[in-house]
Amino acid sequence: MTHGRDEIGQRSETVRRANLGVIVRELYARGPLSRSELVRRTGLTRSAIRVLTGELATAGLVTEGQSPLLGVPGRPSHMVRLVPLGAAVLALEIAVDSSAAAVVGLDGSVDGWVRRERTRSDDPEERAAGIADLAARVLGDRAVADVAGIAVAVPGVVRRHDGLVSMAPNLRWRDVAFGEMVARALGVPGPVAVANEADLAALAELHRGAARGETDVVLVSGSIGVGGGLVVGGRPLLGAAGYGGEIGHVPVHPAGAPCRCGSTGCWETEVGLEAILARAGRPVAGGLAALDGLLREAADGDAAALGALDETGAWLGIGLAGLVNLLNPRLVVLGGVFETIFPFVTDRIEAELDRRVLPAPRALVRVVPAKLGADAPLRGAAELAFEPLLQDPARWFARARATPERRSA
Amino acid sequence: MTHGRDEIGQRSETVRRANLGVIVRELYARGPLSRSELVRRTGLTRSAIRVLTGELATAGLVTEGQSPLLGVPGRPSHMVRLVPLGAAVLALEIAVDSSAAAVVGLDGSVDGWVRRERTRSDDPEERAAGIADLAARVLGDRAVADVAGIAVAVPGVVRRHDGLVSMAPNLRWRDVAFGEMVARALGVPGPVAVANEADLAALAELHRGAARGETDVVLVSGSIGVGGGLVVGGRPLLGAAGYGGEIGHVPVHPAGAPCRCGSTGCWETEVGLEAILARAGRPVAGGLAALDGLLREAADGDAAALGALDETGAWLGIGLAGLVNLLNPRLVVLGGVFETIFPFVTDRIEAELDRRVLPAPRALVRVVPAKLGADAPLRGAAELAFEPLLQDPARWFARARATPERRSA
Repeated sequence: MTHGRDEIGQRSETVRRANLGVIVRELYARGPLSRSELVRRTGLTRSAIRVLTGELATAGLVTEGQSPLLGVPGRPSHMVRLVPLGAAVLALEIAVDSSAAAVVGLDGSVDGWVRRERTRSDDPEERAAGIADLAARVLGDRAVADVAGIAVAVPGVVRRHDGLVSMAPNLRWRDVAFGEMVARALGVPGPVAVANEADLAALAELHRGAARGETDVVLVSGSIGVGGGLVVGGRPLLGAAGYGGEIGHVPVHPAGAPCRCGSTGCWETEVGLEAILARAGRPVAGGLAALDGLLREAADGDAAALGALDETGAWLGIGLAGLVNLLNPRLVVLGGVFETIFPFVTDRIEAELDRRVLPAPRALVRVVPAKLGADAPLRGAAELAFEPLLQDPARWFARARATPERRSA
Repeated sequence: MTHGRDEIGQRSETVRRANLGVIVRELYARGPLSRSELVRRTGLTRSAIRVLTGELATAGLVTEGQSPLLGVPGRPSHMVRLVPLGAAVLALEIAVDSSAAAVVGLDGSVDGWVRRERTRSDDPEERAAGIADLAARVLGDRAVADVAGIAVAVPGVVRRHDGLVSMAPNLRWRDVAFGEMVARALGVPGPVAVANEADLAALAELHRGAARGETDVVLVSGSIGVGGGLVVGGRPLLGAAGYGGEIGHVPVHPAGAPCRCGSTGCWETEVGLEAILARAGRPVAGGLAALDGLLREAADGDAAALGALDETGAWLGIGLAGLVNLLNPRLVVLGGVFETIFPFVTDRIEAELDRRVLPAPRALVRVVPAKLGADAPLRGAAELAFEPLLQDPARWFARARATPERRSA
């Protein structure tokens, strides 16, 4: 072959950068690995791994040390691990009734966290200014330009590529360029990454929670609305413009109740928090406090409370049956309100799946509660914020080297 | 950098084979391209393209010639095109009422085609023997070992990796290792690739029909059952074990009619051929002939016929609304029976989407009829059969070189 060198000469810098990314992503997803494991998992040679991890160590992203495993035959292999705060991101969350910010390291560790009750106004510019205040608090001495990425969770429908929030009914937003607003408020080049809170909760459950290591997952997160994340073949399902995964608005009962979206009988009209409370004869605006009361009565064996939860389980099972037939996932993770009510609905969900899912996909799927609780959207924002670094760590070094005065500030 | 040569030396054969695949896939997807276009589309250097296309020409997969474009400034660029029968595949179809086989070339051209009414029995071994007979007829002088791939379309739920048909209600099959059976009947090492007919019709519409060039598509194919194909980010959605895309069994009317799958109110109980006929007061077993009668009456303005089709359109729209909210596709393609009734249902479908889809994904999606008609599943089987060659053409040369006596036979 005479073309090899020519073609490869052209591409070797691209290959080097891609391989740095492969190593960092393996360490990020799996935790510390020996050089031998990196060789096995990446398909790179031992000497390439040595040189590339050396480069990552010089950049302060990894450390290397002797393996703690004793009694393994052969030469000890060096363990390679990410430096937790070798790079950090700024994770932000706009919730309906609060805002939150955190600085998160490469190992998922949180180095600064703050949550504040909602401001009086849902005006987007005011919410952007408020979140920038929280960001300044958690950043402390760090300059915002030093973080490896920034992302914001919002309770709305988001166009991923530019952070436009096309609709956020509970904030009464329509077509808000929130990624741009947050960038201006923080004083960084925009737009900042923005994504739906339930999608991000799903991402966090995928990387750090109940779905870690799974490639085909349906993640459902319930509150007043119902959102989620669909993971297909190891990749989040975004659709043509990032609007995919609106599982709350799948029609399951076309002659059912009106939905805030203008349709009728959407899944969230049957399983959202308000529907659960209404079914139990409680005030629909009672929120999580009313749900706690309902769960206490159910735990005491109250038949009406148990009946309302069972009927909710049936509708959960009906909607999930469609998702399982469509997507053939191995795992369904129920978060938010559904994590709370899980013990009271799991039997009915399983029964509906038995009845409504084709036998082959039925045999493969498990339904489990989420693990990360109420901070899942914020943790998901951290995962999203790390994506550029994980795709191309060399670009991050170059930027970090270009701003030494900031880094030593 | 001292590691470049070492690491790359290890990988150059892999890179060469991958690049051969990139070139063949570009030509397969787009038709003839100039060398300059190949440079632009693949990111390879001009000299690499020259060497790699030379290798493909030696293997008989491509030809090169002067560009037919006159009046373009600069040196004329060589056009590279696939040799239509440089490689061919065997495409097979088991339908409920017929079997079919075709030999298909790299440009989609059909070199031998036969369809035969169903045999008396639906016994899987007899259907496998019957399809092997048809295969021998279309292969003519070719040995079955000479084809680049073989795939079978079946009207059932299929586990892709081994061709197990877990359920095919209209054939009364359950857990049939059909990929193995067809391989034995043909006398080739098994299993042969097997996939759902509607999934394959969708694949054909994607590569050769209404969805060509699209990356986010919902393809729906209606007959007695309703199947389809979901394409997400340019890749078919298969799910954890290849059972994904069972759109006919999404619950849309939980208190509705019983479905053959054991559930109630699946989408196909509202939009399948039998539901359409029942709604119009025609015998449910009347088949396509009864549908033709219904369409003639509708064309003549018969109110009952138009009403039945309009109600079918409403249920089509309800199911599609869920899929569009979930998947954010740019295109929905309606095939099979839905292609036939399209002019009578399109307005009602659009109205339901207006009402039930969130504004952002609604604005992006178009609903169009399929293009390939009744042969779409067979054409899709050809597409599936070509996949190994498109992934790794060098492996196909090696096999072809290893059996010269067969190729000259």
